[in-house]
Amino acid sequence: MASEQSPNEAQVTHFKYSKRAVLKTVVGRPDSGLGLIGQRVVVGGWVRSSREFKKDEPKPNPGPKSGHGPKDITCVEVLQTRMPFLRSIIKVFGGDHRARDKLDNAIALPKPPQPSISILAISDGSCVANLRVVVDSDLAPPSQVMPTGTCILVDGVLQSPSLQDKEVIELKADKILHIGTVDMDRYPLSRKRLPLESLRDCPHFRPRTTTVASVMRIRNSLTQATHRFFQENGFLHVQVPIITNTNCWGPKNENTFHVTTLLDRTEKTDDQNPFDDFETVKLEIIKSSIQEKARKIEELKRSNSNKEALAAAIHDLKKTNELASQLEAKQRGKIGKSSQRTSRASDLPCLTVSGRMHLESYASALGNVYAFGPRFVANGPDSKKLLAEMWMAELEMAFSELKDSMDCAIDFLKFVCKWILDNCTEDLKFVSKRVDKLIVDRLQSIVSGPFEKISYTEAVEVLKQVTERKFETEVEWGVFLTEEHESYLTDEIYKKAIVIYNHPKELKPFNVRLNDDGKTAASFDIILPKVGTLIRGSQTEERFNMLITRIKEFGSDRKHYEWYLELRKHGHVECSGFSFVFDPLVMYATGINDVRDIVPFPRSFSIAQ
Amino acid sequence: MASEQSPNEAQVTHFKYSKRAVLKTVVGRPDSGLGLIGQRVVVGGWVRSSREFKKDEPKPNPGPKSGHGPKDITCVEVLQTRMPFLRSIIKVFGGDHRARDKLDNAIALPKPPQPSISILAISDGSCVANLRVVVDSDLAPPSQVMPTGTCILVDGVLQSPSLQDKEVIELKADKILHIGTVDMDRYPLSRKRLPLESLRDCPHFRPRTTTVASVMRIRNSLTQATHRFFQENGFLHVQVPIITNTNCWGPKNENTFHVTTLLDRTEKTDDQNPFDDFETVKLEIIKSSIQEKARKIEELKRSNSNKEALAAAIHDLKKTNELASQLEAKQRGKIGKSSQRTSRASDLPCLTVSGRMHLESYASALGNVYAFGPRFVANGPDSKKLLAEMWMAELEMAFSELKDSMDCAIDFLKFVCKWILDNCTEDLKFVSKRVDKLIVDRLQSIVSGPFEKISYTEAVEVLKQVTERKFETEVEWGVFLTEEHESYLTDEIYKKAIVIYNHPKELKPFNVRLNDDGKTAASFDIILPKVGTLIRGSQTEERFNMLITRIKEFGSDRKHYEWYLELRKHGHVECSGFSFVFDPLVMYATGINDVRDIVPFPRSFSIAQ
Repeated sequence: MASEQSPNEAQVTHFKYSKRAVLKTVVGRPDSGLGLIGQRVVVGGWVRSSREFKKDEPKPNPGPKSGHGPKDITCVEVLQTRMPFLRSIIKVFGGDHRARDKLDNAIALPKPPQPSISILAISDGSCVANLRVVVDSDLAPPSQVMPTGTCILVDGVLQSPSLQDKEVIELKADKILHIGTVDMDRYPLSRKRLPLESLRDCPHFRPRTTTVASVMRIRNSLTQATHRFFQENGFLHVQVPIITNTNCWGPKNENTFHVTTLLDRTEKTDDQNPFDDFETVKLEIIKSSIQEKARKIEELKRSNSNKEALAAAIHDLKKTNELASQLEAKQRGKIGKSSQRTSRASDLPCLTVSGRMHLESYASALGNVYAFGPRFVANGPDSKKLLAEMWMAELEMAFSELKDSMDCAIDFLKFVCKWILDNCTEDLKFVSKRVDKLIVDRLQSIVSGPFEKISYTEAVEVLKQVTERKFETEVEWGVFLTEEHESYLTDEIYKKAIVIYNHPKELKPFNVRLNDDGKTAASFDIILPKVGTLIRGSQTEERFNMLITRIKEFGSDRKHYEWYLELRKHGHVECSGFSFVFDPLVMYATGINDVRDIVPFPRSFSIAQ
Repeated sequence: MASEQSPNEAQVTHFKYSKRAVLKTVVGRPDSGLGLIGQRVVVGGWVRSSREFKKDEPKPNPGPKSGHGPKDITCVEVLQTRMPFLRSIIKVFGGDHRARDKLDNAIALPKPPQPSISILAISDGSCVANLRVVVDSDLAPPSQVMPTGTCILVDGVLQSPSLQDKEVIELKADKILHIGTVDMDRYPLSRKRLPLESLRDCPHFRPRTTTVASVMRIRNSLTQATHRFFQENGFLHVQVPIITNTNCWGPKNENTFHVTTLLDRTEKTDDQNPFDDFETVKLEIIKSSIQEKARKIEELKRSNSNKEALAAAIHDLKKTNELASQLEAKQRGKIGKSSQRTSRASDLPCLTVSGRMHLESYASALGNVYAFGPRFVANGPDSKKLLAEMWMAELEMAFSELKDSMDCAIDFLKFVCKWILDNCTEDLKFVSKRVDKLIVDRLQSIVSGPFEKISYTEAVEVLKQVTERKFETEVEWGVFLTEEHESYLTDEIYKKAIVIYNHPKELKPFNVRLNDDGKTAASFDIILPKVGTLIRGSQTEERFNMLITRIKEFGSDRKHYEWYLELRKHGHVECSGFSFVFDPLVMYATGINDVRDIVPFPRSFSIAQ
């Protein structure tokens, strides 16, 4: 295909659908482009760094690090770096925008006292390597092409490097086809090596940095590997719905986003108070949240959690109770009028938290199925690991038990890690150098190493025997294992990825199969060092009566799950599967420890508040 | 890999992650399983049809069509088909549920007067072909295993068929490992060959029918082909956000779903009226809808549309205006209190309608990128072609113009059509037989045939010359070409897929590049016979000032697009791309003409009302 590199080919391959050769097929070749010397090519990209040489000066032998050295800075650049200061002077002395424009023009179109050559390192995002482009000042003024971030499309000939340094080839520009200039004062990436957190303010520009570009290419490869694993094993991709009424954590809980077309609803109720529906929905949600909060308090009490947390939770519950009473009083006057519409309002759908329930119905017909798409959580701890919107892969297999999906999940993880080791060598090398030296080792350890498998009960026993460390949440059977417990197990005790299975049934959704002990559920979590829980799997409760009991125990109403229950009435089958959160794997594979830096446009929990 | 068929292999391959061989690797082999005779295998699936033979009766030679013949029906089956009648008699004569249970037990566990053999055709959804399974009544009573929809997992030996018919092999069951029974009275698929529209009531069961299963396997293949085309051409997959404030059709229009966490919002404003935000949002949306409606009326007037439509639109606008006045009056009393929060409320985000704007920022860094995920439209005509939730593939290329993305879109379409012709032979054969005989020809015509390319202006000229057909909307330059125009062009005039390019700028989003004529935009639509518009593409407006002008013309405020405008300030590039709606292609490839039948869980426009 057009964009793939072929090291033995003597010709440059121009990309089929744009007027240029992709740099991966030039400097990204195994020979770094050496075999292409002498060939004419059109390339495009954005300037990463630049230097300027006067034509009559001898060319210095630069060090291995390219970029501005103090000696290379021209008077234009000096002016450009002083622009904010000059602008502010004009402002202070009453200069209007015309004066400022004159200044801009003076800077933008300088008449250089002598001809010069701009040496640009450009990248088009297709690979780690930059291409050096040599532009004579006759073709384009250095002030226009040199600022970092400038977009340039040039026609020229590949030649041996004119400077003696690590570059293997360079492009001597003959013709400039396009320049997209940069307003250096305002361009957020003008400074070099910005820390990742300061790039979060400009998600639309940050893939122009080498690190984020590498992360995004690794992310792309992981997506591809995910589909490959499933397709090569005969799983069918099913597009489960995003807008839904089905939620494995109980209907309408506070963890979901609600979806509405406010306007349509109004048009249909324009002879009534158009806000009734919202009040009703709100009250219902608050009531279900009260149950949730009460349950949390019970949990905190059970787990001997710290007293502040408990007090805060009780205060929270009290406030919510008050609000519910106020709303109820308000509602009472409207009962007659709105009773018929209450049910419709309470059916306001949500953004899906998991596609596994829908997937199960397809597994109960097509056998082996998977989904891969966005999932949503509206509330969560303020953490570096969780966003409101995340991509998840989910899998469901008919005729399978817990062990089967555990094996499948482990193989899947090994497959995707091997895939990027094989396909992202250069990017991994770069992020190893820049972010975390250990990432290749860590990926390798997943591919080669066995996973430690322990039951939840065993994990609790192991953690209870820990004396050298005091955990914030005391470990006791029945307690939700937190990040600190998990990381102690993976990083300190086993020093590898672990699988914890058979959790207390209270800690898992109602549709996880109850084990024969009556206390634990057929579940498993795969936990990786450094990033925590990555995969959650389970065998599904296929027994009709047991599922009804579990729904009741969960405080839910079976009417929300009628279609799901029907799968147990007609041709039921043993099913198991797992869901895999995509983002932590990208973090594991890149060493980056904040999820906001590896998602193209991250959505925080406050997005829809 | 485990699930792939290998025709020369003598051994049955059991699937790695469940306790059975997938039927695709047994009856789905090119030799239909002949080479596997004599081998032991575990298979699972759901009963598609069944017959019973008494052991001492001679086996008849059945016709080519399997299924119940009048002679094959046993007394058990007679009783089972009469169940609703018997139940109703018991009810009429006052029998309580115990009496009904007794009846059920009598039917469910009949003592057959003589040993018999159940002949089941089972499918596990992995291929079109069923496997015949022979079950002795000693192993399982026919009443339990014979009903359509029963799930069964059996261990047995593959043998030559015991009946003389078209089957090549059958499985003689030795051991029954699992039975998932069916309540025949209530199972919606008990009757054979249900029309697709009656299956819409049970989306969770319908993949158990041969037609829907085939459609879903073709859908899976098309998904796979979509990723393959992009990846093989070096495009990087970018996960664009679902929850967003950016909308290429203007901010907060009536075509978007809104996302909110009602509960959180309440908790934060519990000392104020918690519904203020909604009222404000509602008012804002209503106001923007008024603008939209007024624009529509103008359009209707311009296009000399029929009078009923115009009258209805005017009535609609009047009602909306009244509502706005009422709400405004209500708001006026609260101004002081809520003014500060208005801006926050109006920032309530939406579900994305298109990912191309976000994608463009990645193209302006990584070059060639694509997205593939769910997109949402909250309002639309009640059509067989459009749902509120749909998957779309979107692509964006830096350094490219309109023609480039047109070429890419055509190649993409040829690639995916060829892919399913090569990879879904059996499924296409089946849906050809069952749904539409011409689908293979139609797919072939995309792969081999050139596309007719005409400008919008030419298309209008051609349609104006049509005399033998009166269109509901009269054709005139500037009018939106409707379904009837499009289908006349593809089905009657050109008799193939067409590309219409350079539409009037008013008919396309504001960010489509203005052509030099000042009237048309650099856009294209690819329209297929039978399904209509499938791909919409465009070159993006890269000129800062022009984009500002277009935003104004569009009646939008530039403050909603600041980040998007910044791409033009810093290193801008010529970009083009397209978006491809997935569902119509599935319809084209299967001949099914209602989108609700080819989407796993379809979401109509009324979902969130």
